Amino acid sequence: MITVLSGGVGAARLLRALCDVTDPEEITAVVNVGDDLVLHGLTICPDLDTINYTLAGLNNEETGWGIVAESWRVNEELAAIGGESWFQLGDRDLATHLYRTQRLGEGATKTEVTRELSARWGVRVRVLPVTNDVIATEFDTEIGRLSFQEYFVRHHHGVRVNAVEVVGVDLARPTDEVLDAMTSAERIVIAPSNPIISIDPILQVRGVREILERRRDVVVAVSPIIDGAALKGPADRLLGELGHEVSSAGVVDFYRGLVGTWVIDEADRELEASLRERGVDVRVTTTIMARSEDARRLAAAVLA
Amino acid sequence: MITVLSGGVGAARLLRALCDVTDPEEITAVVNVGDDLVLHGLTICPDLDTINYTLAGLNNEETGWGIVAESWRVNEELAAIGGESWFQLGDRDLATHLYRTQRLGEGATKTEVTRELSARWGVRVRVLPVTNDVIATEFDTEIGRLSFQEYFVRHHHGVRVNAVEVVGVDLARPTDEVLDAMTSAERIVIAPSNPIISIDPILQVRGVREILERRRDVVVAVSPIIDGAALKGPADRLLGELGHEVSSAGVVDFYRGLVGTWVIDEADRELEASLRERGVDVRVTTTIMARSEDARRLAAAVLA
Repeated sequence: MITVLSGGVGAARLLRALCDVTDPEEITAVVNVGDDLVLHGLTICPDLDTINYTLAGLNNEETGWGIVAESWRVNEELAAIGGESWFQLGDRDLATHLYRTQRLGEGATKTEVTRELSARWGVRVRVLPVTNDVIATEFDTEIGRLSFQEYFVRHHHGVRVNAVEVVGVDLARPTDEVLDAMTSAERIVIAPSNPIISIDPILQVRGVREILERRRDVVVAVSPIIDGAALKGPADRLLGELGHEVSSAGVVDFYRGLVGTWVIDEADRELEASLRERGVDVRVTTTIMARSEDARRLAAAVLA
Repeated sequence: MITVLSGGVGAARLLRALCDVTDPEEITAVVNVGDDLVLHGLTICPDLDTINYTLAGLNNEETGWGIVAESWRVNEELAAIGGESWFQLGDRDLATHLYRTQRLGEGATKTEVTRELSARWGVRVRVLPVTNDVIATEFDTEIGRLSFQEYFVRHHHGVRVNAVEVVGVDLARPTDEVLDAMTSAERIVIAPSNPIISIDPILQVRGVREILERRRDVVVAVSPIIDGAALKGPADRLLGELGHEVSSAGVVDFYRGLVGTWVIDEADRELEASLRERGVDVRVTTTIMARSEDARRLAAAVLA
């Protein structure tokens, strides 16, 4: 059994690659919900959806987010009547949010709704929100307090961040399924997701960090930083703005005490020795998953 | 100033005809919200939307409900993933519900949201929900308790009704705008909407019935029953099931004490004398609004 702490796109790709090298039913994704939002009354879970869509083969490769063969009728109409349309909601994607919101209103948990959607799309990986409680990652920025999607989508993660806070996390409990998946896994993987806004909200949920500390020998992390930069998104920028070194070494320090083995990219081979001095094992391979054979090689290195 | 107590389609057509014979800005529609619902987390106001769509020229003449040039991508996708899709939500229509739900969540009232939507669509009639409070018309039926849309849409108003209840109406207050429109109007019109499930929920809101009683001399009602049948919908069936006579006379009795002048269809001319015996004035004209010249003639009769 393998448990993968997961954000959105990067985690989804690693999970898909893991499915190529091992039985998907042996894999559990424990997914960030700190960027979930309620918009127009609908509960939207971007990371859970990205993972389900990707594992179902429904992800939109062109845009890098959302669902394939998407249309935008509702969002266009919403813009026409003066509604907030900066968070682009596709028509197919909307059906997911309508379904989820209806089921949550009926008393289902986020865990149950996610399981229903996974089943409907034939996803065999077990996809779990880290918690059924509501948490919200927020940003203190140079232009004031922003919600996750205001920062990420509305402002294209282009404003300077002074601090990140996961509102509500003090009261959030991990689900029993998550605790079980983390304590019983033969390997726990930290996906190459944004450490600060995708993985840290998971770590902040009560008890999660402690399990990693206790089980760090089985924890393998893939660095999201390659040669000092993130492939996608603001991980590099945020690390720097919040006082961390913008490198694989900075990420290793960020996760200090939680990870037994690091997988870093060939481009960072020169860091291998200094990382080992930090008391971790290091594997070097291609961590860019654009080509499927590279993704499979990375997945094999993670499971080695 | 003319104030029209309104349900959905029948009221919308009468309002449109009134706009042809008088200044739309002299007209206020006081609209039923007893069939409003929350579905998939979205607040849906079928009667308010039907009136706005119709007055904006956006109504779908083919279906008789909803919005013109509609598409169904979201609803099809929702059905595909196993969601509840019996209440058909069109893509354009959904934008209205997303807009409304977002604004309500921001603290706007239903009155404010309706005004915003009317303005966006160039509707010059003032369209007012009778109350900003939540009320819900429910049905005790032969198959159990049903919400409005379960009865009306899901079961195509095809099950026997024992009683109708407007849940929450005891606590609902009419808005100041509604009270003002009803007390200051030179004429109050009761549209040929379903008496039991469109108009009565308006009358049950505190104070509304009393204004009509006090002002019955200026109240004109159009009978929704023609030759013992409703043109559309279950008005005839419901009148009968709830012990009323299924005729214009039955409707006159239903509204006893509230209406000074009745407009009935040519087909019911033989009832004229017996209605006058009930102490109301009676006008006879074509009340079917399928042809625009007939609709205009009806509107003129209402304002005569």
